[in-house]
Amino acid sequence: MVKLVVAYGAPEDSAAFDAHYASTHVPLVEKIPNLRRFEAGKILGTPDGSAAPFYWLAELWFDSVEELQAGMGSSEGQAAGADVATFASGGATLMIAEA
Amino acid sequence: MVKLVVAYGAPEDSAAFDAHYASTHVPLVEKIPNLRRFEAGKILGTPDGSAAPFYWLAELWFDSVEELQAGMGSSEGQAAGADVATFASGGATLMIAEA
Repeated sequence: MVKLVVAYGAPEDSAAFDAHYASTHVPLVEKIPNLRRFEAGKILGTPDGSAAPFYWLAELWFDSVEELQAGMGSSEGQAAGADVATFASGGATLMIAEA
Repeated sequence: MVKLVVAYGAPEDSAAFDAHYASTHVPLVEKIPNLRRFEAGKILGTPDGSAAPFYWLAELWFDSVEELQAGMGSSEGQAAGADVATFASGGATLMIAEA
């Protein structure tokens, strides 16, 4: 499998980020074709107490890179991707990883 | 659940990193008490073709922060943690996240 990892930087308004993520973004992600598993949550901290470089981490698992690309290229995938720009005021780092 | 996320920067010698990870580090991680799930793999790229900020991503799931801390604080957890310094020539960013 592979996964799309989305690491969000600290937003300007974390309460607004959390509310938008739960009420709007999650339903959009769950509509993405080929999606096999979805996990998202807040970065709680670091083991040594130093500042974490990200605020929120989301991961979307797919069976293959091809399935990921087809899913994210679909209208549902594009809608979820476009939504990110509406709430990720701290930026979003996207990576594709082996899983 | 929660997870310990370990994001490795690009190592000086990726073949040596990969070999050490598979032959030495994975067996150490798998001995960590309370570990519920372990996933690790190479960052394959980014959706837009830009450079990825990390080379390798590992995640260790536990039932709770307390279980994570007990697992990582055990002799087996300490051994796995100490091993990281022997091969993570590109650095390792550790975060604890909701899962």
